[in-house]
Amino acid sequence: MRIRQLGVPLGVLQPGPLNAITDVAGVMVGHTTLVSGEGALRPGQGPVRTGVTVILPHGGNLFERKVPAAVFTLNGYGKAAGFEQVRELGNIEAPIALTNTLNVGLVLDALVQYMIQQSPQIGISASTVNILVGETNDGYLNDIQGRHVRPEHVWHALHAASNGSVEEGSVGAGTGTCCLGWKGGIGSASRVSPPEDGGFTLGALVQTNFGRFEDLVVCGVPVGRMLEKPLHKNDEMPGPGSVMVVLATDAPLDSRQLQRLCLRAAAGLVRTGAVFSHGSGDFVIAFSTARLIENQPRALTGSIPAVLDEPRVLNSLFRAVIESVEEAVLNSLSMSGEMIGRDGHVAFGLPLDEVRKLVLAG
Amino acid sequence: MRIRQLGVPLGVLQPGPLNAITDVAGVMVGHTTLVSGEGALRPGQGPVRTGVTVILPHGGNLFERKVPAAVFTLNGYGKAAGFEQVRELGNIEAPIALTNTLNVGLVLDALVQYMIQQSPQIGISASTVNILVGETNDGYLNDIQGRHVRPEHVWHALHAASNGSVEEGSVGAGTGTCCLGWKGGIGSASRVSPPEDGGFTLGALVQTNFGRFEDLVVCGVPVGRMLEKPLHKNDEMPGPGSVMVVLATDAPLDSRQLQRLCLRAAAGLVRTGAVFSHGSGDFVIAFSTARLIENQPRALTGSIPAVLDEPRVLNSLFRAVIESVEEAVLNSLSMSGEMIGRDGHVAFGLPLDEVRKLVLAG
Amino acid sequence: MRIRQLGVPLGVLQPGPLNAITDVAGVMVGHTTLVSGEGALRPGQGPVRTGVTVILPHGGNLFERKVPAAVFTLNGYGKAAGFEQVRELGNIEAPIALTNTLNVGLVLDALVQYMIQQSPQIGISASTVNILVGETNDGYLNDIQGRHVRPEHVWHALHAASNGSVEEGSVGAGTGTCCLGWKGGIGSASRVSPPEDGGFTLGALVQTNFGRFEDLVVCGVPVGRMLEKPLHKNDEMPGPGSVMVVLATDAPLDSRQLQRLCLRAAAGLVRTGAVFSHGSGDFVIAFSTARLIENQPRALTGSIPAVLDEPRVLNSLFRAVIESVEEAVLNSLSMSGEMIGRDGHVAFGLPLDEVRKLVLAG
Amino acid sequence: MRIRQLGVPLGVLQPGPLNAITDVAGVMVGHTTLVSGEGALRPGQGPVRTGVTVILPHGGNLFERKVPAAVFTLNGYGKAAGFEQVRELGNIEAPIALTNTLNVGLVLDALVQYMIQQSPQIGISASTVNILVGETNDGYLNDIQGRHVRPEHVWHALHAASNGSVEEGSVGAGTGTCCLGWKGGIGSASRVSPPEDGGFTLGALVQTNFGRFEDLVVCGVPVGRMLEKPLHKNDEMPGPGSVMVVLATDAPLDSRQLQRLCLRAAAGLVRTGAVFSHGSGDFVIAFSTARLIENQPRALTGSIPAVLDEPRVLNSLFRAVIESVEEAVLNSLSMSGEMIGRDGHVAFGLPLDEVRKLVLAG
Repeated sequence: MRIRQLGVPLGVLQPGPLNAITDVAGVMVGHTTLVSGEGALRPGQGPVRTGVTVILPHGGNLFERKVPAAVFTLNGYGKAAGFEQVRELGNIEAPIALTNTLNVGLVLDALVQYMIQQSPQIGISASTVNILVGETNDGYLNDIQGRHVRPEHVWHALHAASNGSVEEGSVGAGTGTCCLGWKGGIGSASRVSPPEDGGFTLGALVQTNFGRFEDLVVCGVPVGRMLEKPLHKNDEMPGPGSVMVVLATDAPLDSRQLQRLCLRAAAGLVRTGAVFSHGSGDFVIAFSTARLIENQPRALTGSIPAVLDEPRVLNSLFRAVIESVEEAVLNSLSMSGEMIGRDGHVAFGLPLDEVRKLVLAG
Repeated sequence: MRIRQLGVPLGVLQPGPLNAITDVAGVMVGHTTLVSGEGALRPGQGPVRTGVTVILPHGGNLFERKVPAAVFTLNGYGKAAGFEQVRELGNIEAPIALTNTLNVGLVLDALVQYMIQQSPQIGISASTVNILVGETNDGYLNDIQGRHVRPEHVWHALHAASNGSVEEGSVGAGTGTCCLGWKGGIGSASRVSPPEDGGFTLGALVQTNFGRFEDLVVCGVPVGRMLEKPLHKNDEMPGPGSVMVVLATDAPLDSRQLQRLCLRAAAGLVRTGAVFSHGSGDFVIAFSTARLIENQPRALTGSIPAVLDEPRVLNSLFRAVIESVEEAVLNSLSMSGEMIGRDGHVAFGLPLDEVRKLVLAG
Repeated sequence: MRIRQLGVPLGVLQPGPLNAITDVAGVMVGHTTLVSGEGALRPGQGPVRTGVTVILPHGGNLFERKVPAAVFTLNGYGKAAGFEQVRELGNIEAPIALTNTLNVGLVLDALVQYMIQQSPQIGISASTVNILVGETNDGYLNDIQGRHVRPEHVWHALHAASNGSVEEGSVGAGTGTCCLGWKGGIGSASRVSPPEDGGFTLGALVQTNFGRFEDLVVCGVPVGRMLEKPLHKNDEMPGPGSVMVVLATDAPLDSRQLQRLCLRAAAGLVRTGAVFSHGSGDFVIAFSTARLIENQPRALTGSIPAVLDEPRVLNSLFRAVIESVEEAVLNSLSMSGEMIGRDGHVAFGLPLDEVRKLVLAG
Repeated sequence: MRIRQLGVPLGVLQPGPLNAITDVAGVMVGHTTLVSGEGALRPGQGPVRTGVTVILPHGGNLFERKVPAAVFTLNGYGKAAGFEQVRELGNIEAPIALTNTLNVGLVLDALVQYMIQQSPQIGISASTVNILVGETNDGYLNDIQGRHVRPEHVWHALHAASNGSVEEGSVGAGTGTCCLGWKGGIGSASRVSPPEDGGFTLGALVQTNFGRFEDLVVCGVPVGRMLEKPLHKNDEMPGPGSVMVVLATDAPLDSRQLQRLCLRAAAGLVRTGAVFSHGSGDFVIAFSTARLIENQPRALTGSIPAVLDEPRVLNSLFRAVIESVEEAVLNSLSMSGEMIGRDGHVAFGLPLDEVRKLVLAG
C-alpha cells in the first residue's frame, strides 16, 4: 500500500498521474531483484537480498543526447561514483544505477559495457563515458561481500526499464535495505507545480537505508516515539545507513539550478526523521529532461530553453522536491513487507494500521 | 517565555544550564538594539527596527588566539562576509557579528577598527584580520536603506557581551526580523552530549527571518496549518527571508568536523518549517573552543586535542545541533512580542497559548 | 610601457584592439588613486598609497539587468566579499570593486549606497543587492590601517569609469601593491578566440600583490633568478601577498562555464611566477556580457543564448584566459614605476631594459 | 634517463634520496604493465597497452589504520572514484589505484575484494570500504574498450608494491598514455623542506596523459615551440587528455591542509605546459603518513600530531609540491621511449638530447 492510500495529509502540491518519477515524460525505471538462500551468512554464497535499480532520463541514446544534471553530497560517507564529471560538465550521459555498496565497481563496469554497445565509438573515436552509480549498504540482510549483482543483472534492469508505474518496496537496489527501524527499499513520488509557476512536473526516486527507529516521522507525526519496537535482532542493525535520492524534472533548469534542487531533498528527508548520521552516505542526483545536449552539436552556439523567473519557478519546484522526497521515503517503507535475511536478521514491514491511527490522531 | 516553558517535548538530549550558546564555556554574546520612530518609511530617517549581535568565541584576544571554525552555505542568496578565509584556514580570529543586510559593510568596518585597537600590529607588522558578518533582511519593519547600525553600536554590543543568559527575541540583529509569519528575532539553545559520547556541550544562536506562515512546525506539530492568520499587512511581507545560525562547542573538533556540524543545522531548521526558499540566505558558522590557535606559535609542530572516535562523538553532536537549532528558532519566536515597524507593518508575536494547546493535543 | 612593447613573444592568440578588459564590449573600468604624505607611518594619517578600482560589466543599471557570473577561490586567505550569492545565483548585479584589505567594509557600504541611488526600491519593494569587493594588502607602502578609501572615492571611480584604454600600473586599487619583488599594480590584457572557435573576446584585469622576487618569470624566462636584487627595504616586504583577477567575455557562457574559466586563471598566474603562498588571497571573478538577466522578467521561461559546442569554444577561451592573465600581470609590472611609501619603504619599478635583454636572450 | 640526469636546473629544494614518492617513509608503489598484440584495433582483443599502478600509504592494514587525506579536482572531466568519502571523512583506507578510464569499475571491484581479504569483517561487522581509483584515457594506443586490466593484475601490482625506487615511464597505468605530444607515463619525484621549515619529505607520483605538443615546457624553456614535430599519426591523437597526481608527505597535516597542497599541484603541471583543457580530467590526491587513524580507536578523544606554524611549514611544502609535480611530469616523459599501439598509432619518446640542448641554451 502506498502511503497516500492511508488517507493521511501529504503536502500541498498535487502529484502527477502516477505519483512517481516516471511522471516526468520520458523517464524510465527498471529493477533487478535478487533474493535467494536463507540462514547463516556464508560470504560469497548468500543469503542474497540485493539488486540493482536503473533510472534513464530518456529512452534514447543518452551518450548522444545528454541531459543537464547536478549532484549534491549531503553526507559523503558513501561510495557513489561518477560525481566529478557531473560537477564539471553539468550533464548525465548514461543510465543512473543504484545498487549495494560493494557492487559499485561491477555495476559501473557493466554500464560501461552497455554504453559501448549503444555507442561503439566510445573510447575509440569519441570520448569515454561517465557512469553514475549510487549505493547503500544492505549488509544487515544481504551477503554484501558476495557482490551478487552481476553484469547480466544490470542489463536485465535496463531492458526491463519502462515509463509506467514504478515498482516500490523491496525491489531492485532496495531489496535488502532498512530504513528508520523498518524494512526500507525503493520509493517514488511526484509533484506538479501550479500553472502560474510553470506547471512543471518533478519526480523523486529514493533508495532508503537510513535512520533510527525512534526518529521516524510520518506526515509530521513522530510515530517512531510511539510505536512499539518489534522483538527482532534490529539491535544489531548496523545503525544509520544511507540514502540515495534521484530527482527528475521537465522544467528547463541548468546544472546550477538543479544543484539548488538537490539541497532541498535534505528537507524532504528530515521530514521523515533523517539526521544525516556520521555513517550515512546521503547523496542527491538531479536532472532535467527539458533540453537534450547533443554530443556532437552542429553549431558553436545557439538558443536553449531556460527558466527566466527563478524565484517563482524554483520556489515551487523546491516545495515539489521536499514533498516528493518525503512521500517517496514513506512509500519505500509502506510498500515493503517483512524481509528475513542473513543470519536470520529480520526487517519488519512498517505496521500501516498502527501508523494510520497515530497519524490521524496526531 | 522560552518555548521549553510551554511544557512541550523538545528533543531527547539535555540542555546545558542556561540552554543557550553561552553554556559553551567562554562564549560571550552581546546586543545593541535600535528601535526609534514610527509611521511611514522615510529612507535614511526611519522608522528604525534593527541592531547588531556579536558572538565572541572567548573573552580574550581572538586575533592572537584564534579558534577552529567552519562555515556552510545552505542557500547562498545572502551577503555574509568573511567566509572565504574560514574555508581556507579553518579558523575564526575576530568576533562574529550579525546585523541587517545593508549594514554588512559598516559593521565589518567597525569590527576592523575594533580589532586594530585590540592588536595594533594588524596590517603593519602582522597580517590583516578576517571578519565574519552575517545578516538577514529586516526591511519589512526597518528602514534598511538607512543602515542605522553605526560603528558605536557595534562597539557597544562588544562591550555589553557577557557569558550569562542570552537575551532573545526582538533584540540586536533580531530586532526587526520576521519568521514563519510571526515576529522572529534572536534565539538560543544548547545540548550536552551523553557522558559516554564525551559529555560535550554544544550551543546554537540563530537570527531568524525565514519561512512562511503555513509552514510553521512546533515540536513536530504543523501548527502553521492550524493557526488563524492574524489580520495584518503580512501579505505584503517580502516572503521568505533568511537565517543565520552560529554553533559553538567545547568538543575538540577540527574545521572539517565542524563543517559536518554545520550541515546538520539544516535539519534543525527544517523541523521548524524551513524550506530553503530561493530568496533565503541561509548560512551556518561553527567553532570549537577546545583549542586556541596561537597567531605566533612557538613551534612548527606539536600535539593538539582531537576527536578520535568520530562516529560516536559526532553522532551525538549532530543530534545536539539539530535539537539546539530547532529550539533556538522556536525561542526566537516565543521570546518576541508584537513589533510595529515602517509603514505600520506589523509582525505579531506567536500566540503561545494557542500553540501550547495545539502542540499538546497534536 | 606595456610588456608587449618590449617585443617579446606573448602567447599564440591575438589580443583585442585595446588589449584590455574593455575590449569586451560594454565593460567599463574606473580608478581613484590616492597618494599623499611621506615618511614614517602614522596610522590613520598616512602616508597614503592606495585606491579603488571598479569594473562595470555594462554601463546600464546592473541591478535591473544582471550578468551571468562565477567566482573561484584559488587560495582563500583573503577578505573578498559577495562571493556566496554569486555561487548560488550565478550572477553579478553591481559594479565590482577592488581596494585594500582593510577597506573592504567601507567600499562595500559605499557601493550599497550607490546602488540604492540607482535603484531606490532596493530593500523596500525589491530585494537587497549583492556587492562584490576584492582586495589585496598594500600595507607595505600604504597606511592600510587608515582605511583612506572613503565613499566619495568609490563614487569618483564609478563616475570616471569608461570603455576606453585601461589605466595600468600604480593606479586605483594597485596604487600601493607589490608583485614578485617589484612594484605591482593594475594590469589588463585581452584575447580574441579564432573565428572557427567563435571569435569571442575575453579580457582580464588584475590587481597584483603576490609572489617573491626570485620567482618572476617573463615570457617563459625565469628572470627572477637572473636579475640583481635592488638595494632596498624589500627584505621586510611582507612576503607573499595576494592577487585579484577579473575576467570578462562576450561568449554566452553560463555560471558553470564561467567558473571553469576562473580555474584557468591559475595557469596564467603560474606562468608569471605565482606559487599560491599560504598568505596569498588569490581570487577570480568572471562574467559574461552576452546575456542580460532581467531583475523582473516578463515570462517564466524563454530562450537564452548558449554555447553548444563546449569543447571547441571553451578550449579557446581557456587559452585566452591563461594568456590574458599572464600578460595582465606583466603589464601591472611594466606599467608601474618606483613607489616610495610608508617608513620609506620602496617598491622599485621592473627594469624593463634588463628584462627585455634577458627575455630575448632566453 | 631521469630528467635530472640531463643536468638541467630543477627547482630550489633538494630531492629525497630516491627522488620519488617512496622517499616518504612507508609509501609503496607497484605496477602491472600489460603490453600485447599489435596492428589494427580489434575491440576486446587488443592491441593492449595499459596497466595498473597502486600506491600504498603504508605497508600495514590500511582499513585498520587509515591516513589523513584530501582530494581536489582541477578539471572534473574524468571518472575518478572514491572522492566523496575522502571529502567527508578526510582519510584514505585502502590502496590508491590508477588505471585506464574504462577499467575503473573492474579495478575498484578487485580492490574491494583485496580489502575484504585483508579485513574479512568489512560489510559484515564493520563498515564497508572506500576505494580511490584514478584514471586517464590511453585509448590512442590501447584497446581501451577491452578493459584488459583484470582483478589478478590489480593483485599483482599490490603484491609487487615496494618501498624502493619507483619504476617510471611506460609502466603500470602509464603504459599507454601520451603527454604533451610525446609518450607519457608514470613519473615521480620528491623534495625535502629545509630543516627550519620542518625538514619534511614530500613526494609526487603522476600518471601523465595531458597537453599539446606546442605547449611543452622543460625547466622553464618552451621547448614545445622549438622542437620539430615527429612525422607520426599524432594529429589524430585525441587531443588533451588527463593527469592524475598523488602526493604523499610525512608532515603531520590534516585533511584541510592536505587539500591546500592539492591545489598547488596545478602550478607544477602548468610549469610543464598544462592548460587544463576541457577534456582533461585533472585530479589530485594527497595523504600524510604522520598519523595513523585507528578504525576502532580506544578512546573518544586524544592528542594528535599537528602543524602549528602553518605559514612556515606549508609554504615550504607548497614549493615542494610544485617542484615535485613538475619534475615527476618530466620524468614520466624522459623515462618513456617510443610506443606503437593500436592501428599503428605511435607515441614517440621525448628526444632528450635535443631537449637538453634547448634547455641549456634557453
